[in-house]
Amino acid sequence: MDVMPCDKGTVETLPDLLSGVSLPAAVVLEAPLAHNLAWMQRFAAEHGARLAPHGKTTMTPALFRRQLEAGAWGITLATAPQSRAAFVHGVERLLMANQLVGEANMAIVADLIEAGADFYCVVDSAANVRQLGRYFAARELRLQVLIELGVGGGRCGCRDHDQVMALGELVDAEPALVLAGLEGYEGVVHGADPAAGIRAYAWQLVEVAQALDHDGLIEAREPLITASGSAWYDLIAEVFHEARLGDHFIPVLRPGCYVVHDHGVYRQAQRDVLRRRPDLERGLEPALEVFAQVQSLPEPGLAIVALGKRDIGCDQLPEPLRRYREGGSPERPLSVAGWEVTRLMDQHAFVRLPEAVEPGAGDVRVGDIVAFGTSHPCLTFDKWRRICLADDRLAVTEEMVTCF
Amino acid sequence: MDVMPCDKGTVETLPDLLSGVSLPAAVVLEAPLAHNLAWMQRFAAEHGARLAPHGKTTMTPALFRRQLEAGAWGITLATAPQSRAAFVHGVERLLMANQLVGEANMAIVADLIEAGADFYCVVDSAANVRQLGRYFAARELRLQVLIELGVGGGRCGCRDHDQVMALGELVDAEPALVLAGLEGYEGVVHGADPAAGIRAYAWQLVEVAQALDHDGLIEAREPLITASGSAWYDLIAEVFHEARLGDHFIPVLRPGCYVVHDHGVYRQAQRDVLRRRPDLERGLEPALEVFAQVQSLPEPGLAIVALGKRDIGCDQLPEPLRRYREGGSPERPLSVAGWEVTRLMDQHAFVRLPEAVEPGAGDVRVGDIVAFGTSHPCLTFDKWRRICLADDRLAVTEEMVTCF
Repeated sequence: MDVMPCDKGTVETLPDLLSGVSLPAAVVLEAPLAHNLAWMQRFAAEHGARLAPHGKTTMTPALFRRQLEAGAWGITLATAPQSRAAFVHGVERLLMANQLVGEANMAIVADLIEAGADFYCVVDSAANVRQLGRYFAARELRLQVLIELGVGGGRCGCRDHDQVMALGELVDAEPALVLAGLEGYEGVVHGADPAAGIRAYAWQLVEVAQALDHDGLIEAREPLITASGSAWYDLIAEVFHEARLGDHFIPVLRPGCYVVHDHGVYRQAQRDVLRRRPDLERGLEPALEVFAQVQSLPEPGLAIVALGKRDIGCDQLPEPLRRYREGGSPERPLSVAGWEVTRLMDQHAFVRLPEAVEPGAGDVRVGDIVAFGTSHPCLTFDKWRRICLADDRLAVTEEMVTCF
Repeated sequence: MDVMPCDKGTVETLPDLLSGVSLPAAVVLEAPLAHNLAWMQRFAAEHGARLAPHGKTTMTPALFRRQLEAGAWGITLATAPQSRAAFVHGVERLLMANQLVGEANMAIVADLIEAGADFYCVVDSAANVRQLGRYFAARELRLQVLIELGVGGGRCGCRDHDQVMALGELVDAEPALVLAGLEGYEGVVHGADPAAGIRAYAWQLVEVAQALDHDGLIEAREPLITASGSAWYDLIAEVFHEARLGDHFIPVLRPGCYVVHDHGVYRQAQRDVLRRRPDLERGLEPALEVFAQVQSLPEPGLAIVALGKRDIGCDQLPEPLRRYREGGSPERPLSVAGWEVTRLMDQHAFVRLPEAVEPGAGDVRVGDIVAFGTSHPCLTFDKWRRICLADDRLAVTEEMVTCF
């Protein structure tokens, strides 16, 4: 036997998901994927914005490639090693929407810039500006930075206009740093009316970006203004559009989860987007599922499925979507009506069945294949080294490697 | 620049954790690791049992090797791909403490048996026995199986003596299957007095195993009786020892988390073990930490650390253990007294600091390195493709590859 790579579910001959694939397996369905790629790209274009999808969601270069081919301006990442993984897989414009901390991480980024990457990261403190200025000066490189404007009680970022302007002066004083614009993340805005709070925050981003520009602190010829996660991107896009920022700034949206959407928090968030924006046709569609098999029917009303926290995100308990016989037809899925996951262990899911039939009796069989959805997608992708891309007949058309 | 492998934190020159390692990084400390390896091996030996540590915890062949060198009888796994990964890394005796479901997974196991693996898995249903019997007969191989005895309201497994005996007859009737003993998992026993319930369950395992043997249903010359996770292994070991099972059966214990222990549920479980068994000296010690850096001090009393659900298990919020200056000395850690993680996002931890100092003031600096502990270890290991083994001066002595 050949020595195999470290991998939990290698697909050797690209068979279909109902026979020949070691389950559990994570699956992205081609049709909703293609729909989502086009949908969000069109949304950004219609709002005069560029799209830099957050790559941390999938860390799947085969999806980065599709996002860029669909028209994305670049890929957003969260860390230096993520940026390196994207770059070595062909992504040349990298927006690290996070502070760059630690000399080992700075070294990774310096290597990327030397190799030709168009790289941006975020700063929010004098200490970090000094660290970066010193490191990149020693490497004789210039680093493009965006100042982060945060919100009180939020996550990272300067807390007000004056802090941003003062930090802009410090960046200006560091020869190795290029101030390239302003960055924010509206996902940590809270309050009784989050939509109103996020609109106000977006307008604050606009005002502060214009102030930096007015004071001559932005060095980049094409400065960026960027915000947006996967839940409130519509509000950010609208404000940036209304502010006519496209005349001078490049507005960049950074949703990540849209590419495969989900069966939980982002499904709900998308419903809210469509309620705010009834003009948007046919929203995002869930494209990520995990297929797993019934391994035990030990007592009436209980199925144990070979699916656990090792296999699927569990912000919420996974949702059974459809069921198939092993080796059966993809066209007539069996019912999972009334099936409910009640508990998830590392490698097992407890599923309550609607009818308390005797073990082994009834319609459910050991070996049945169940497709599960869940939320949120980032925490399903990172469980897998390979993701199966499948067509609507559940044939595996590509094995997509992840780079976590 | 060379094309790099997919990896979030490659350590190129094995430096120390306070300079030169891209953080966050998962770290196993050598001294408590060595202590735990010896401690559990001695525990098993003193109870006349063999040790087959559950490998799903770490899926780290460098740790499997150390477990086998310490005297382990084999390695337990949860799935066919895990079994394959262990085998190709030199583990020859594999106890898959789970049902083997799906032809693709059976094919993986058949390949292992053909390649010389001493492989065992678990059955609990007539349907699965027929599936396995048919598949392995077609492959002209024999598969060693253990019947699983479960508990009512628990997970997998036959629910009583009679079901086990009936299933034993069915295994006996399948020429491709070899009944090799009985398997159980006490971690799903519940009730007002769990220790009493687990002792009763362990005695039931003994009684049923002896009944299978008495009826001539066990074909293996050296039959196995096996149970135990990482919390109640002492009770299982005691009952198997009292029952003098070692005279005929091989009693096999399967704790997994002991190898690195933890800072949460298993720390508490170990305190309970030591309370039940005051004769046991110096218990297990936590050996797994995640090192991460302060990336932002955005407002008084708040540090944002570059550590998230992508990096560390979060059954509980991570616990700050010690702090260091980047590039500083490992010998005089700085205080984290009163530090508390209040929220964990995908890539960020929110840490409440004890003194609401102004941003950037006080003792804490952007770039400070914080060591975190958490629970449970399985869900930290699976976030990483490489784990740093470090000595007590925090020098990285080995990069250990994981095989999830």
